[in-house]
Amino acid sequence: MPELRKDPITGRWVIIAPDRAKRPTDFDASTARPAESFCPFCEGNELASAAEIVAYRNHGSVPNGPGWRVRTVPNKFPALKVEGQFESRGVGMYDVMEGIGAHEVILDCPHHESRFASLPANQIREVLWMYHDRLVDLKRDRRLIHPLVFKNEGHLAGASLEHCHSQLIVTPVVPIQVQEEMRGAKDFFGWRGRCIYCDMIREETQAGDRIVMESPNFVVFCPFAARFPFETWIVPKKHMSHYETVQEADVDELAHVLKSALLKLRQSLDDPPYNYILHTSPFDTYELKSYHWHIEIIPRLTGVAGFEWGSGFYINSVPPEDAAEFMRQIEI
Amino acid sequence: MPELRKDPITGRWVIIAPDRAKRPTDFDASTARPAESFCPFCEGNELASAAEIVAYRNHGSVPNGPGWRVRTVPNKFPALKVEGQFESRGVGMYDVMEGIGAHEVILDCPHHESRFASLPANQIREVLWMYHDRLVDLKRDRRLIHPLVFKNEGHLAGASLEHCHSQLIVTPVVPIQVQEEMRGAKDFFGWRGRCIYCDMIREETQAGDRIVMESPNFVVFCPFAARFPFETWIVPKKHMSHYETVQEADVDELAHVLKSALLKLRQSLDDPPYNYILHTSPFDTYELKSYHWHIEIIPRLTGVAGFEWGSGFYINSVPPEDAAEFMRQIEI
Repeated sequence: MPELRKDPITGRWVIIAPDRAKRPTDFDASTARPAESFCPFCEGNELASAAEIVAYRNHGSVPNGPGWRVRTVPNKFPALKVEGQFESRGVGMYDVMEGIGAHEVILDCPHHESRFASLPANQIREVLWMYHDRLVDLKRDRRLIHPLVFKNEGHLAGASLEHCHSQLIVTPVVPIQVQEEMRGAKDFFGWRGRCIYCDMIREETQAGDRIVMESPNFVVFCPFAARFPFETWIVPKKHMSHYETVQEADVDELAHVLKSALLKLRQSLDDPPYNYILHTSPFDTYELKSYHWHIEIIPRLTGVAGFEWGSGFYINSVPPEDAAEFMRQIEI
Repeated sequence: MPELRKDPITGRWVIIAPDRAKRPTDFDASTARPAESFCPFCEGNELASAAEIVAYRNHGSVPNGPGWRVRTVPNKFPALKVEGQFESRGVGMYDVMEGIGAHEVILDCPHHESRFASLPANQIREVLWMYHDRLVDLKRDRRLIHPLVFKNEGHLAGASLEHCHSQLIVTPVVPIQVQEEMRGAKDFFGWRGRCIYCDMIREETQAGDRIVMESPNFVVFCPFAARFPFETWIVPKKHMSHYETVQEADVDELAHVLKSALLKLRQSLDDPPYNYILHTSPFDTYELKSYHWHIEIIPRLTGVAGFEWGSGFYINSVPPEDAAEFMRQIEI
């Protein structure tokens, strides 16, 4: 059973998930990967994954068979498990919690495609709508507090299978970085009476030099204090704290914007591995004036980040203004 | 000129150092590296690096010539620069500071060796003593606030040259992760009246299952809430908040302990790339009862960390008890 452990110094929770464990001797720092001959995520191979939780299916198809467009299954090696009671206990001076939560995999497309940005916008739209549907559903479980929706694309970004997929982890605690973000935004709101993200949208569209692109309802920019070269955020112009409150029209537009942003990154950095993470509010909060959902895209450029990973101190060699200018000039 | 930018939401400072910049098109996510034919860090090639700041030299040798044992030079591509005034200004809604600070490279040995753990303990002792000497010296500059001493070993850990070297960055602000650590430790002290690291040493030596090794004055263990597989900490048993107050006897012993810990990691994980980071108190504090210097070693196992990098949420597939047991059983 996985467990959540709290760092007694910083308060950071960590998932210790030995079910996912390799044996210590199995670690290999090389980046070589075996060629994939069989893909468990491809249409027709449904039985290779666990029984589906939900899928968008064509008329006449049946669960766990072909005929789906987007399909959500439990992670085969879950970091957290849905069964069990929410229970915290002490171990010596430390705090531990049972590793309750959800860990799902969203198969973004039925055919074998390894680049999310290559999918038609209409397919991306369905994936984004699946995020919405899963959050709405999981929110009903009162033990679950915070949803993390993310994508790892490319081996160096942590993807273990190349077929496009997204992941969803819902934790029974609020992760420390989310806590910090929300606390910072709340402090700003307390002082100014405005959402800091709304202020950033105004600032960025006015300054213009960090803007990558704009659509009627979204703005894409490289943040002023970008931690990583070509770090890119997608922020809805309309204030909304919870992603699960998006409307279909928002998602239609977001699909085009996300695809374009990823295509620009792909062309700028020669098809980099990347992660994107949906930043949204915890389930146990209700319409927050101080927080604003958004997507952060982080290309993983080998050799750029060194000790930052362990120290929280970032050195970025590409000013966000330069990255944004470069991406602005790329025609999609 | 590099600059420090503050994330307006979290308060995190980031160094934007365009002097280090590659052009956007120069990024390459592949891990292939050109073979190194010429090593600027080897004895005899002193002129390939900037003029030395200080070196431990054999009798009769002269600065910037051969005959040194450990040698400190300015980083050729510094993330921060010593020249300039400490000056903060606003840019729209954001805060910027001139990128003042120090960025030095410590050449750990004169001959070409790529594995720090392979150096004799006596050589490691001199490197650890160099850390001490540099901190004592840099502390006299009142503009400099926080020292980060670290080592990247292996390309995947961010090392750009393979010849063993350490780095030292001194920033004019306290990095956010250090702030969090110190705040957590201070809160604990405020509540219990004890140093949390001293408590952890007691807890760990009593529990025993996360101990990797012990020496008279140091304890090496995998922390309870380890973020990474085989994350390993070296903590002095004696309470000391500032590394620069170590005595020669401490450093003699630490050299043996650090070498052994790294050898155990090397054997456990088949020579992994790794980072280690010296956690010590900011220069502008005086003997803190709540903080305790220590070294954190993080092996960089490809494919293990995914979105954690960007979200601050860690999933560790190897319980620290298993990692510690594995390392305990390795005979050095």
